[in-house]
Amino acid sequence: LSKDIDYQSVLSEIHNEIAPLIGGGKVANYIPPLAEVPSEKFGMALQCTEGESFSIADGGERFSIQSISKLFALTLAYRHAGASIWERVGREPSGTPFNSLVQLEYEKGIPRNPFINAGALVISDIILGLATDPQNSFLGFLREQSGSSSIKVDEATLRAEKATGHRNRALANLLKDFDNLEHPVEDVLDFYFFQCSVKMNCQELASTCLYLANQGDSPHAGKVISARKAKRINAVMLTCGTYDAAGDFAYRVGLPGKSGVGGGIVAIVPDLMSLCVWSPALNSSGNSYVGTKALELFTTKTHLSIF
Amino acid sequence: LSKDIDYQSVLSEIHNEIAPLIGGGKVANYIPPLAEVPSEKFGMALQCTEGESFSIADGGERFSIQSISKLFALTLAYRHAGASIWERVGREPSGTPFNSLVQLEYEKGIPRNPFINAGALVISDIILGLATDPQNSFLGFLREQSGSSSIKVDEATLRAEKATGHRNRALANLLKDFDNLEHPVEDVLDFYFFQCSVKMNCQELASTCLYLANQGDSPHAGKVISARKAKRINAVMLTCGTYDAAGDFAYRVGLPGKSGVGGGIVAIVPDLMSLCVWSPALNSSGNSYVGTKALELFTTKTHLSIF
Amino acid sequence: LSKDIDYQSVLSEIHNEIAPLIGGGKVANYIPPLAEVPSEKFGMALQCTEGESFSIADGGERFSIQSISKLFALTLAYRHAGASIWERVGREPSGTPFNSLVQLEYEKGIPRNPFINAGALVISDIILGLATDPQNSFLGFLREQSGSSSIKVDEATLRAEKATGHRNRALANLLKDFDNLEHPVEDVLDFYFFQCSVKMNCQELASTCLYLANQGDSPHAGKVISARKAKRINAVMLTCGTYDAAGDFAYRVGLPGKSGVGGGIVAIVPDLMSLCVWSPALNSSGNSYVGTKALELFTTKTHLSIF
Amino acid sequence: LSKDIDYQSVLSEIHNEIAPLIGGGKVANYIPPLAEVPSEKFGMALQCTEGESFSIADGGERFSIQSISKLFALTLAYRHAGASIWERVGREPSGTPFNSLVQLEYEKGIPRNPFINAGALVISDIILGLATDPQNSFLGFLREQSGSSSIKVDEATLRAEKATGHRNRALANLLKDFDNLEHPVEDVLDFYFFQCSVKMNCQELASTCLYLANQGDSPHAGKVISARKAKRINAVMLTCGTYDAAGDFAYRVGLPGKSGVGGGIVAIVPDLMSLCVWSPALNSSGNSYVGTKALELFTTKTHLSIF
Repeated sequence: LSKDIDYQSVLSEIHNEIAPLIGGGKVANYIPPLAEVPSEKFGMALQCTEGESFSIADGGERFSIQSISKLFALTLAYRHAGASIWERVGREPSGTPFNSLVQLEYEKGIPRNPFINAGALVISDIILGLATDPQNSFLGFLREQSGSSSIKVDEATLRAEKATGHRNRALANLLKDFDNLEHPVEDVLDFYFFQCSVKMNCQELASTCLYLANQGDSPHAGKVISARKAKRINAVMLTCGTYDAAGDFAYRVGLPGKSGVGGGIVAIVPDLMSLCVWSPALNSSGNSYVGTKALELFTTKTHLSIF
Repeated sequence: LSKDIDYQSVLSEIHNEIAPLIGGGKVANYIPPLAEVPSEKFGMALQCTEGESFSIADGGERFSIQSISKLFALTLAYRHAGASIWERVGREPSGTPFNSLVQLEYEKGIPRNPFINAGALVISDIILGLATDPQNSFLGFLREQSGSSSIKVDEATLRAEKATGHRNRALANLLKDFDNLEHPVEDVLDFYFFQCSVKMNCQELASTCLYLANQGDSPHAGKVISARKAKRINAVMLTCGTYDAAGDFAYRVGLPGKSGVGGGIVAIVPDLMSLCVWSPALNSSGNSYVGTKALELFTTKTHLSIF
Repeated sequence: LSKDIDYQSVLSEIHNEIAPLIGGGKVANYIPPLAEVPSEKFGMALQCTEGESFSIADGGERFSIQSISKLFALTLAYRHAGASIWERVGREPSGTPFNSLVQLEYEKGIPRNPFINAGALVISDIILGLATDPQNSFLGFLREQSGSSSIKVDEATLRAEKATGHRNRALANLLKDFDNLEHPVEDVLDFYFFQCSVKMNCQELASTCLYLANQGDSPHAGKVISARKAKRINAVMLTCGTYDAAGDFAYRVGLPGKSGVGGGIVAIVPDLMSLCVWSPALNSSGNSYVGTKALELFTTKTHLSIF
Repeated sequence: LSKDIDYQSVLSEIHNEIAPLIGGGKVANYIPPLAEVPSEKFGMALQCTEGESFSIADGGERFSIQSISKLFALTLAYRHAGASIWERVGREPSGTPFNSLVQLEYEKGIPRNPFINAGALVISDIILGLATDPQNSFLGFLREQSGSSSIKVDEATLRAEKATGHRNRALANLLKDFDNLEHPVEDVLDFYFFQCSVKMNCQELASTCLYLANQGDSPHAGKVISARKAKRINAVMLTCGTYDAAGDFAYRVGLPGKSGVGGGIVAIVPDLMSLCVWSPALNSSGNSYVGTKALELFTTKTHLSIF
């Protein structure tokens, strides 16, 4: 039974077993604030619905959450706008990386899911229409769910994202051309880059995700969304959460998860716990190389795969 | 608790609630043996790991299993050839329907997963290299797992599939061009069409799938594959099992499932039961219109979603 | 012999024969300054290398040259930067319209030719690096070649192009992402929109193109480029000059030509004359519906096809 | 004037100038009969409409005409079925090589032009419906136009084409799936492979093409097609005749041309002559490396570009 597992020992075992893998993969280098993070960093944290929490190694060190932010943006848009969001963004896996732009063109400006950049831009546009101060609403949500009021954006990352975001700017303009952005392109991009530039640590991320492991209701921070919506977000995470490796991640790890190019991955064990692992070097799909392996070891050791 | 659920009543409720939907969707019409099936048919069956089974309406009437066969072919190939199968076929969702051929070309003849036709042709080729009498091995597996020795191929369906299978023949020749078929194209197609042309009923299909709900080990028909492999097949089903609607199916139903254009869908509740639903009219994604709805009602009523 | 042709009569015949076609096609309506042009307008002008010129109907009325400007931009870039331009832009036809963005992605940011928008953006970027005042250089070239000092940009068109150019902005940002733009995206777009917004009439356009019919050397305005380069520009026009209908245009008309969505088309009869026709309603490929027909009648009547 | 040119000297100059290039490129190696041809072979022949002919080096040695056969097949289909052929095949350039299959899918089974393999398969199907003995009609046409009754198919090439033609078999099945083949797939393929396997020499090919340089009417073998159709075939050749390098070929050579992977290229100087060059090693676009260069030298020296 899952109650009988000594999770701290499991984390220790994982920490030992991933040690030889440190050095594999490649840290994202498109902006200096990501490129400068030491590749040997590794942290992992668990937050159980019943209250216990566990952390190891660099589990308390903050990193750039990057695309993990798409999970929280989806939650906020879905909470307030409901199923109407699916008129503007799909919930199907995206196929080959090659297809990002052609897919958008072929499907007339409807991004395949909220976790590819085009879809996250649409979600950003939706949030701009819902919140009077979207940046503060977004930060407020993270601070409230994690219980950590010092969470904030890294300004150097934000500046670098804006300066190099030509491809996201291309996507946003194409969405605008298809009439799937209501707000000015630059406003949408500003909010999108803002979300990506937040820094959090594994403990904070595990805590923030707990509502997804607990029927939409965080034991420590209250009701976020309905149980039905929480399950559905988990389903979208499983099929679309890890770029073009969603199938491989489901196969290896067997949990809904969402990754970011900062090297973080959050994952959910429904009705039991939320997890976060961090190691900055990425595999060829853009997911943390060591992080993916650590989660695979976790489900192998605990038999907590949803399958 | 799931033990306390009265499954027969749940099936009755579902039967009542889907009644108004009968008449929606469209029966596959590319070959007469499928086109001639009355669209108002509906059946559903459950097989619990603990032994109980339930069935309603046309749950005992046989239909063409079509692509559900891909699940059993994958099981046989994976059982005997192990993880080496992933060198010849991927396990990622396939993206837009538009991409079937271009994907194969772009990814140099490696189909994205074993559940798209191209991938199933590769799996057929693998089985041709493993079994001395592949057709009998395949039928034998179905008969053994279901306990029904009368399961067989429908000859009219088989003839029609062969006569109209130009697109599958195109795929097989492209795979051959990429050196991803070892056997002659026509031999691979023959075995592929054979699998698709088997007829089974919901009860038989639920029974046959039970190993996937029970750690790879069928309570009534013995060990099929390892627990690890069973989980992994479930993961591939969830991300790739329902054509280009895998994301939507996960979102709505929340169970690993595999559909066929004959209108059948099998689904797995890990550690609890296997299900099969049948209704021949299809939605725009090629999955049973009423069947998908029935499964959605099932998880809504029982809260048995894996998420 | 072409000398014996009475070109004014040929123009009259064409004018009569196209009359019943007026009303076909559809005027470009993405910006008001184009949408407001009466669809029944028709003009045509010839400029012979030996000095004679002919014009009919609205041949003296100015219209938005739009993509015809790409021909002059290519000339200026090729004149000053030589064959090095082909390192940054191809000279192959572009295939289906569907492919514009995917092609750019597949070919790593190298547009297929200088006459698709992406290629023209690269040419604009090249000119920004060559001229200290690119807008005046461009206008000066048109004024000098046409002998008409009043040629200028239409400000309403320019404003409208900038306001609605989301797709061009998407392309430019994608080119920037591939490092195939040296100047800021907005500077490149500004110059690109400037070129497109120039207004000229058929007589002025025929005169401006005369160097391409005369070995690169305009009889009335001096040497523009080498004979070899002029021939090569004509070759690129023939294979790429009329959007995705280059094959059809070569088949029907048999002359190198460049069209614009303002309804103008220029064409070249090597060693003999340059032509321009204008009629604002477009066929499904985005070329002037009546203009294409008028040019087809011209080569049918005069046997001046290059084939 | 072109009459004053000493063509034999021009051929000698070209022969000298291409000598250092021998050894570049790569002989087609997908079947032994092509792979075994010595890469240093080079021949060239001209056939003037006024009767004179010129040849140099290996101009009298036969080679596999391969895709040059598509030009003659198009002529036969167009002659007998007229413009109706364009309902089943387009006449636009094909864009990137990557697109062959996706294009066919995207455009619902209508190949972009008669010179890509899919288009030539449709043309083959058309000819099967027109001729009672298509193979003899085809051979008869070549023998009559060239005046060489010994022209025939190379049986080893034919066998090898059939044995390795998986991709063409894929295309033909996809065309069949789109209902754009009337005859059985294998019949169409048989006739297609037959055409490709004919062997001819440069002199024979130049003679055979002469009708295209003479308004459809061969001075030595009589009327083939109308002047209008001949011009239109030349236009299709220019825009689509050299695989994905049509733009480059027009730019460099400036003549309508059709190439084959056997290393032959035929070209047309309208109203003056037909040419054929042969050298088996191919450039990356699949056109003869030395042959393309020889034709470029020819138009540079003679100024006979159509532009």
